[in-house]
Amino acid sequence: MRREITGFSNPTVKLLRSLRDKKHRKRERRFLAEGLRLLTDARESGRTPEMLVMASGREEHPLLTSLIETVERAGGEVVETTPDILSKITGKDNPQAVAGVFAEFDTALSTIDRSAAPIWLVAQALRDPGNLGTMLRTGDAVGAGGLILIDECADPFSVEAVRASMGAVFTQSIAQATWSEFLPWLRGPDGRSEGQLVAASLRDAVPYRGAPYQAPCFLLVGNESRGLPEEYEAACDLRVTMPMKGRADSLNAAIAGAVLAYEVLASL
Amino acid sequence: MRREITGFSNPTVKLLRSLRDKKHRKRERRFLAEGLRLLTDARESGRTPEMLVMASGREEHPLLTSLIETVERAGGEVVETTPDILSKITGKDNPQAVAGVFAEFDTALSTIDRSAAPIWLVAQALRDPGNLGTMLRTGDAVGAGGLILIDECADPFSVEAVRASMGAVFTQSIAQATWSEFLPWLRGPDGRSEGQLVAASLRDAVPYRGAPYQAPCFLLVGNESRGLPEEYEAACDLRVTMPMKGRADSLNAAIAGAVLAYEVLASL
Repeated sequence: MRREITGFSNPTVKLLRSLRDKKHRKRERRFLAEGLRLLTDARESGRTPEMLVMASGREEHPLLTSLIETVERAGGEVVETTPDILSKITGKDNPQAVAGVFAEFDTALSTIDRSAAPIWLVAQALRDPGNLGTMLRTGDAVGAGGLILIDECADPFSVEAVRASMGAVFTQSIAQATWSEFLPWLRGPDGRSEGQLVAASLRDAVPYRGAPYQAPCFLLVGNESRGLPEEYEAACDLRVTMPMKGRADSLNAAIAGAVLAYEVLASL
Repeated sequence: MRREITGFSNPTVKLLRSLRDKKHRKRERRFLAEGLRLLTDARESGRTPEMLVMASGREEHPLLTSLIETVERAGGEVVETTPDILSKITGKDNPQAVAGVFAEFDTALSTIDRSAAPIWLVAQALRDPGNLGTMLRTGDAVGAGGLILIDECADPFSVEAVRASMGAVFTQSIAQATWSEFLPWLRGPDGRSEGQLVAASLRDAVPYRGAPYQAPCFLLVGNESRGLPEEYEAACDLRVTMPMKGRADSLNAAIAGAVLAYEVLASL
């Protein structure tokens, strides 16, 4: 279905603008992804937006044509609007912008099939949406299955996280859980499920290079300023440490996860 | 010297607020760093702020006392102000905040002593100040000498970069140059200076693990969306490639630099 919107006060415009805000995103269970490349990644990963928004008379592009066809075939809506309204929605002054509205995915732990990949990233209380999106992007690069978010993390469906993920938000599995849900899930009903929990740590740790990693390997990184709680580290199967040659005693969380993930990738 | 400021229109308040803006920062050749920990890192690295700003009646803290002594001994100014004015300066609603004003460092290539460290990070047209600060932080962790910024990069003295560097802006050397200045400097007057230029690349590259790295090793990463210009890659001594197992063909720039830097650290 095609529709043209020319008024700022149109309810669809209000809805789209509201999706930049976490509270509204959670209520609507929808999120926004922007850019033809990102939307094409989504389409190729089998994720079709419910609604596509662009400026009327926007330049044609073969990828856009495919996208419009996919959305219309799936019963979604294609909305054309003015460049002014579009820039209010996207927050950018780009009349070539294309935005898509997606239904949030199910992020229950039960959606994770641990046997589907040798590496899984796990972030605890990660607060920066850019770090979160970067971890998704890194997960895609190392062939991880997805990202499991423990305790109160940034929203993986925020515009910043979606953008930083460079499309990996559509290809990586994403789950959200508390620690007390995650650990029993990881260990399984009989406490013997496969899955090695590894933390970057300074306590009782072995050098990260050449450590005995095993698939499926769950790489746990902690909060940007506080790191991991001590009892979380204690529950890990393996604690590894990275050289710190300078004054600081920690790396950026997404950096630590990536250096570790590439080491695991090389050793499995 | 101690001073108390109670008016929003005070010229010092205006100056401090203006330092959040690149144009003013460049004109004043000053920058702002916030937080007691960051300022203490600066002090311990021999960088003393010209001015220290805090709320009148702020809680005492031994690190703050040391900082105040250092600033006063160096002939700097200690400014006390109201919590309201302080939050206008720092952009945060934290009456415990402490901010310091520093003179920008000399970022000429000639300040770099390549023999001082085995690893140097080099970023080309890096646009994101968070990525830039994260690279400084990673450089500190791997024992790099510093970060060389090629062509038009984000400002290393922006509040975001300083914050993301977690103090490494004070410990890592920082240089800014164009490519046509950098390459002759690297090769030296007779074209035979020590220094291996390494790029993460997809063209004519060898696997990054086990590649023949040599100190001093200059690790070059490119712009977030365009990567490195082809001629820059061609000028490198070594091109290395990292596994990309997913849909995407690149990593976040700071991530690529970190994975590479840790590999070089392990192999040198």
